[in-house]
Amino acid sequence: MPLPEKSLIAELRRLAASAGPGPRARTRPVVNGIGDDCAVLRVPRGHELLVTTDFSLEGVHFRRDWHSAESVGHRCLTRGLSDIAAMGGEPIAAFLSLALPRDLPQAWVRQFTRGLLRLAGQHGVILAGGDTAESPTGILADIVVVGSVPKGQAILRSGARPDDGIFVSGELGGALAALRQMRGRNKAGVAGRRRHICPPPRVALGRALREKKLVSAMIDTSDGLSSDLGHICEESGVGAEIEADRIPRARAGRSRRAVDLELGLHGGEDYELLFTVPEGRRVPARIAEAKLTRIGRITRARGMVVRDAGGGTRPLQPRGWEHFR
Amino acid sequence: MPLPEKSLIAELRRLAASAGPGPRARTRPVVNGIGDDCAVLRVPRGHELLVTTDFSLEGVHFRRDWHSAESVGHRCLTRGLSDIAAMGGEPIAAFLSLALPRDLPQAWVRQFTRGLLRLAGQHGVILAGGDTAESPTGILADIVVVGSVPKGQAILRSGARPDDGIFVSGELGGALAALRQMRGRNKAGVAGRRRHICPPPRVALGRALREKKLVSAMIDTSDGLSSDLGHICEESGVGAEIEADRIPRARAGRSRRAVDLELGLHGGEDYELLFTVPEGRRVPARIAEAKLTRIGRITRARGMVVRDAGGGTRPLQPRGWEHFR
Repeated sequence: MPLPEKSLIAELRRLAASAGPGPRARTRPVVNGIGDDCAVLRVPRGHELLVTTDFSLEGVHFRRDWHSAESVGHRCLTRGLSDIAAMGGEPIAAFLSLALPRDLPQAWVRQFTRGLLRLAGQHGVILAGGDTAESPTGILADIVVVGSVPKGQAILRSGARPDDGIFVSGELGGALAALRQMRGRNKAGVAGRRRHICPPPRVALGRALREKKLVSAMIDTSDGLSSDLGHICEESGVGAEIEADRIPRARAGRSRRAVDLELGLHGGEDYELLFTVPEGRRVPARIAEAKLTRIGRITRARGMVVRDAGGGTRPLQPRGWEHFR
Repeated sequence: MPLPEKSLIAELRRLAASAGPGPRARTRPVVNGIGDDCAVLRVPRGHELLVTTDFSLEGVHFRRDWHSAESVGHRCLTRGLSDIAAMGGEPIAAFLSLALPRDLPQAWVRQFTRGLLRLAGQHGVILAGGDTAESPTGILADIVVVGSVPKGQAILRSGARPDDGIFVSGELGGALAALRQMRGRNKAGVAGRRRHICPPPRVALGRALREKKLVSAMIDTSDGLSSDLGHICEESGVGAEIEADRIPRARAGRSRRAVDLELGLHGGEDYELLFTVPEGRRVPARIAEAKLTRIGRITRARGMVVRDAGGGTRPLQPRGWEHFR
């Protein structure tokens, strides 16, 4: 971790020290944090390590004129925590690499850090290191989250089998609907929609699903249902059939109308959990405050299809997340 | 790890699978690598975890018209491995976040990856995951290296005590001298200087120093002697006195003349190890093929000074690494 900008590192150290560890943290999981060549961490005995890295790039993942600095910081860490949740894991520490343009107001950095550290504190996650640099253009953040999971119990994408039920937590399409409103400058309708602007990662749900040993495969809906289900199908060597009218679509705007089916199928960044459950296993309607909905089943035949209310089917193509195109 | 560009992920998977693990690797340290929400790793029993992250940004850390893609890939990983070495650790796995401009030739990516994976293979390090994105401008890489060290044995920056000897491996100033030659388009004189273009991280030396229990504090010379010694002094609450004529200056150019003292004092990116040893301990002239030179001693009085051949002293200010200003 070379060439830290001294004042920023000092500020991060101070903020990080005041933020964690939270009530869920084990005894001193971070032996040595910010300010050495490496951070030194302890992994609980009998556990394996989880590592995930995610970019948050200005102009690709966020826009300064649409997203508040606090929401950028929150979402930056959400991306990593949601990946840990999707493995059924427990987050331990985060590492932030941050490249900033020379003319960026210090207030932006402070708000960004506040959004990130507030979420870290809620999950007992310690900011344990990172790197800083001057950016040639735009804000560049890369977040690394390290977590742990009892040995052999990580929930992979590759475990789905034919006839498994397909479930999703919460509601889909809300984040993209909120983004479209922001793009349309209709911020009034968005202001109260904190859930979509600062989505809470489903860490408690992921942990509970792992403990209940209910789940055969899992992923988070960061790219959108069609893409993320596509990843499960590809890694598991199976197909899927989704029932259109079972998709829990978010309600958006002043009218609180359910978002269009296409947003539910393809909208990304909701950070819900998408998982499969072997046939015959009972799934509660709620776990860890999250509503769970069965939306379809895994098929032996490859490819994904959507079954409409009338009973007809059409192919479902992974359409991915829409960025700011 | 959302939205991987499919062909790149497939290529990295294929290349990563062929690269590791090398002879030093433990049994399956990477349980599950590229292609899930997180990588799953195993940390050896009785060991603590080391984590480091380092940016390599076009226009800040490298220039496409000066550095070959292969050397950019090599140096990207060197930055992380050198941090692991500076803790006396053993590298396990690397994670690469890579944002690329849309118009970047595929050949550049392939050469970059080759440089990175060749070095990874030499150290038994597995490329276990990362993130990919389209860059709004320029090539952005962030490397994470995860390693391990026996519990309580990580060598920190904070352990230096008054009268400890100060040692450095190899030679200093060569990387910056080579860079200046590249800037001056005098590539002929640089071509043969692979050590400066693709510096080998001192992993074996770091490990040996930890095993010998010789060292009280250690850092790698990524920013330059004056800055990196400054970090040791700051974290240890001590000062330092350096003897100018003991600094092992690299020989550069066709004349093979030693570089200027200022390059030895302030030139960065040599990736040598800088360490302190309690008074009275004997240090071999070479360990793990690296020449070791005593260049000064730690002082109780804060601040750093250089003692010239004549015996006079002058203050030494941390001047940091020169980037491409």
